[in-house]
Amino acid sequence: MLSAEDTVLAYWAACEARDWERFGALLTEEVVYELPQTRERIHGRADYLRFNREYPGDWHLAVVRVVGSGAAAASWTSFTVDGEPTPATTFFQLDEAGSIVRITEFWPEPYEPPAGREHLVERY
Amino acid sequence: MLSAEDTVLAYWAACEARDWERFGALLTEEVVYELPQTRERIHGRADYLRFNREYPGDWHLAVVRVVGSGAAAASWTSFTVDGEPTPATTFFQLDEAGSIVRITEFWPEPYEPPAGREHLVERY
Repeated sequence: MLSAEDTVLAYWAACEARDWERFGALLTEEVVYELPQTRERIHGRADYLRFNREYPGDWHLAVVRVVGSGAAAASWTSFTVDGEPTPATTFFQLDEAGSIVRITEFWPEPYEPPAGREHLVERY
Repeated sequence: MLSAEDTVLAYWAACEARDWERFGALLTEEVVYELPQTRERIHGRADYLRFNREYPGDWHLAVVRVVGSGAAAASWTSFTVDGEPTPATTFFQLDEAGSIVRITEFWPEPYEPPAGREHLVERY
């Protein structure tokens, strides 16, 4: 059985490779995918695979950080969609067999820093 | 020495309690805090403590998920600022002594779901 960290690394590698068979094999049939920002939820491996297969644009991803322990993991990835890099942060829960049962994903977008903290921060 | 997970739990507990002495004791003096969305960076414990102490609003936080392993951890927290809940996702790196050396934080904001996937998602 893969560790939670290796499962998430395999998940992202299969995703980038569009290897939906390998990707789907990491998920339970009842996997739930949630996007709290839009309050969207997808139930089940079949619909989640279709969501990924149908996702528009020439997207690519790179893993920035993965941390896993026991049945939990989190990743920070960098997606490039038509040239624009966008981060994603994702929380995973696994079952006792090491399959992914729940995925919660965030797509943080750039915003202007609030005024009043210029004395403490640098911009990069 | 605390585990990475317990360090992050102590960090958030001290933050919610405004116990800046305890909070600061979890950080190295050279800690770096980064906000990729605004491309802001704060260098050092003194400025990072001040940033937190000065942060406006009657904010409160609850930990949703923490995962840690070795010198890495990630958390998903829910902040409430003047009644509005907002998620934050944070990636931590620790040094060999278990102190936090690097914090990268995301503040994902709500957005409207793109059209074309209504056949796969429910809203919640």
